[in-house]
Amino acid sequence: MPQLNATGPDSPSDAVLAARLALSATATGGEAMSDVEFFAWLDERRPQHHQEVRRTSFAKLSGWQFDAETGDLAHRSGRFFSVRGLRVRTDFGPVAEWSQPIIRQPEIGILGLAVREINGVLHCLMQAKAEPGNVNGVQLSPTVQATKSNYTRVHGGSAVPYLECFREPWQRGHRVLADVLQSEQGSWFFCKRNRNMVVEVGPEVEAREDFCWLTLRQLHALLRYENLVNMDSRTVLSCLPDWQHGPGPSPALHSDVAIRNWITTQQSEREVATELVPLREIESEGWHVGEDRIAHERGLYFSIVPVDVSSGRREVASWSQPLLEPHGLGVVAMLVRVIDGVPHCLMHARVEPGYLDVIELGPTVQCTPENYAHLPASARPRFLDLVERARPERILFDTVLSEEGGRFLDAQSRYLIVAADDDGLDDIPADYQWMTLRQLGELLKYSHYVNVQARTLVVALRSVPELTPQLPDVRETVTVAAATDEGAARADRR
Amino acid sequence: MPQLNATGPDSPSDAVLAARLALSATATGGEAMSDVEFFAWLDERRPQHHQEVRRTSFAKLSGWQFDAETGDLAHRSGRFFSVRGLRVRTDFGPVAEWSQPIIRQPEIGILGLAVREINGVLHCLMQAKAEPGNVNGVQLSPTVQATKSNYTRVHGGSAVPYLECFREPWQRGHRVLADVLQSEQGSWFFCKRNRNMVVEVGPEVEAREDFCWLTLRQLHALLRYENLVNMDSRTVLSCLPDWQHGPGPSPALHSDVAIRNWITTQQSEREVATELVPLREIESEGWHVGEDRIAHERGLYFSIVPVDVSSGRREVASWSQPLLEPHGLGVVAMLVRVIDGVPHCLMHARVEPGYLDVIELGPTVQCTPENYAHLPASARPRFLDLVERARPERILFDTVLSEEGGRFLDAQSRYLIVAADDDGLDDIPADYQWMTLRQLGELLKYSHYVNVQARTLVVALRSVPELTPQLPDVRETVTVAAATDEGAARADRR
Repeated sequence: MPQLNATGPDSPSDAVLAARLALSATATGGEAMSDVEFFAWLDERRPQHHQEVRRTSFAKLSGWQFDAETGDLAHRSGRFFSVRGLRVRTDFGPVAEWSQPIIRQPEIGILGLAVREINGVLHCLMQAKAEPGNVNGVQLSPTVQATKSNYTRVHGGSAVPYLECFREPWQRGHRVLADVLQSEQGSWFFCKRNRNMVVEVGPEVEAREDFCWLTLRQLHALLRYENLVNMDSRTVLSCLPDWQHGPGPSPALHSDVAIRNWITTQQSEREVATELVPLREIESEGWHVGEDRIAHERGLYFSIVPVDVSSGRREVASWSQPLLEPHGLGVVAMLVRVIDGVPHCLMHARVEPGYLDVIELGPTVQCTPENYAHLPASARPRFLDLVERARPERILFDTVLSEEGGRFLDAQSRYLIVAADDDGLDDIPADYQWMTLRQLGELLKYSHYVNVQARTLVVALRSVPELTPQLPDVRETVTVAAATDEGAARADRR
Repeated sequence: MPQLNATGPDSPSDAVLAARLALSATATGGEAMSDVEFFAWLDERRPQHHQEVRRTSFAKLSGWQFDAETGDLAHRSGRFFSVRGLRVRTDFGPVAEWSQPIIRQPEIGILGLAVREINGVLHCLMQAKAEPGNVNGVQLSPTVQATKSNYTRVHGGSAVPYLECFREPWQRGHRVLADVLQSEQGSWFFCKRNRNMVVEVGPEVEAREDFCWLTLRQLHALLRYENLVNMDSRTVLSCLPDWQHGPGPSPALHSDVAIRNWITTQQSEREVATELVPLREIESEGWHVGEDRIAHERGLYFSIVPVDVSSGRREVASWSQPLLEPHGLGVVAMLVRVIDGVPHCLMHARVEPGYLDVIELGPTVQCTPENYAHLPASARPRFLDLVERARPERILFDTVLSEEGGRFLDAQSRYLIVAADDDGLDDIPADYQWMTLRQLGELLKYSHYVNVQARTLVVALRSVPELTPQLPDVRETVTVAAATDEGAARADRR
């Protein structure tokens, strides 16, 4: 007869894990690499990863071609991704109907983060990785960042390091801390989702070249550097179990069921109809396929551009691919209000055409201001003025970060957390709602509730000292409960 | 400054609600209507709802037509639903590639259940409702069962009774107990989802003609009658908060994160590509559009048939519509194993082409045995033999129930719960997993994890005395905590 273990809310196993994560987020001793050593290491890695990225024309794009019938841009192998047309009708936002190119990548990739205890403190295994679309070459990626094409070796490259930690982890004695499919940019991708996975490994896993172990405290500090912690790292870190809220009930403006009721109301009442169509069909609808770009006739939104990449270090030494180049710097901001000592985020139920199920929760503001220049003032994104005019002492986080450099060229957004004044925020529009970080952490266990931009801000929110609850001394909890926990971890290895 | 309330795991509010639901599931006094009175009432309602359902030909189908270009069958108004073609490629199941007709109904309907305290016990407001596809005319539906076309009155019928309870419930002083989008049959519907909503109302809401108040104990007893509690009632009841598991950690074979890891693994590793195509295209692929049916060349699976309905009592007096008529009686069965006193269900990660995100969790067995007759023995559904050969004392639930009579004609399945022997069940295939009812209840708070057939069995599982945990006397808890709870309910009315 197999043995049962306690699980669910407030299980001892979850409590110990929370204490260990809290320790990693605060400990200032025992790091595998000091902050100074990290930057020295990164400076040393950069030149090793130099990539030559050159704009080219579609005609010269090796391996990629426009389909003779549909006009879709795809790889000859049928793998990787394709650029297709999308037609959208919606009752949300200033424009009711439009067409656009969109990236279709039905495969599910793995964004995997290995964590391991070193000197009694949990560390994350981070990778110095170059991507062709990165504005600055190398950024910090999670341990594994692999599409199915990568790890089934469609392009005949070398094996993905550490992939084995994320395949059959229990059987290897590892422990899964998080594993959930999450969407990515719904304006640029059609129904894209990646697997966000955090796995705790043992001392047998060591950092190879290009990899380093960093604590959560270090990663939180690095998040304040421009374009350093990449999008994949941010999304997978956001899926870590919430360690900041202890067991038992937790205060919030709205109950959890009221939050779910609000989400379902937003899903049910919005109508958005999307249809993938041949790229050729949208050419008459504002988009132009040129020799070296697919672009909007007014130069708005984004372009699709072909590039050649050469590198001595990636899975393959050189390749070509299209990239989506957004026009203008994005603004992604969360208004936060501390109510009775509890920080609440103002979440927005966003419709994006590429979402699987109509809406996901985005941050308070998410836009590229330039795209609104041609629209009437009434179409200006709500709360944008409030964010742009916030007094400096109200700004708790303000860093320019990049979106995924494997698909997007120079895609940068300014990510902000702004402490809201109490004035004028009681009467918010129906598609906005105040939620606590604990409530966001709960939703992040499940797929397709919190969008990729909000996920970056969840990581940032957990790193802001002003918003972090006072926790008891966690070292003691960790020691006392370690034995209990070991039992729980063992049980899942079947 | 607004007031915060305790929410999340083990909140006093949730604990009181659980005690009140437990009371409703066990109380044998205080019912608004005795069991005898209920059947007398139902017998009286039946003749009032007589519907004449006559098979007709597509040519005579009023309001519906085949599109000249695509061959799709749709209503002239563009509302309700349409019958389109679907092309599927998958690595799951005995057939890797097929085409089929499928119902496309992008609108999100409401399945709403009003509950109210009568004589200190929670009662559900049930409706005696006829549907044209019902094998026996009237079944018990939830309070509201309305498509968007219904409640926006596309067909010019009368207003949907009680709809107002589910629109802006907090503002009316009602309390939402559950609200979540859930999928329906993924073999017959393409990305169909309905809103499953339970709302607690006050004494101002009374039962009109055709409606009656029943306790959970009564509904559980009625679930054992053939074709009585309809599919919509079953799915919405399954979304009620789990009242059988107290606060704090709960024992289970696998931790909650291990369960999520297993689900994500199944989602990531299966490949299923679907494409809606014109119905005309699949005519050359095994399906035939005839004068009075769309049917498979071998007579398998299902047909689409046109019917005329006349009724003096529905929103409109008479109408025509197509219905999907499955061939053969379905078998839907859950193997249950009590481990260390805790019942575990053997869930199956099912691929169905109409699911939004590749897989959902189905029961151990879900099939129409006749559809496998032409396939080799190796293709026979796993565990079907075990279910069919179960000794009578092992069968904890066994009732023939209907699927939704508004879309399906005479669609019946035999729903079973079978207590498994311990032999041969330790080494289960990778796409099966043992989960507790508490774990299923947790997943049911979120969309698209538990399929519609499994949801029926969740209700049945909660009704089986052999599987119900011993609960403390709940009447006391209810009284003591009622005051606390009132505060929490108030807070969400903003």
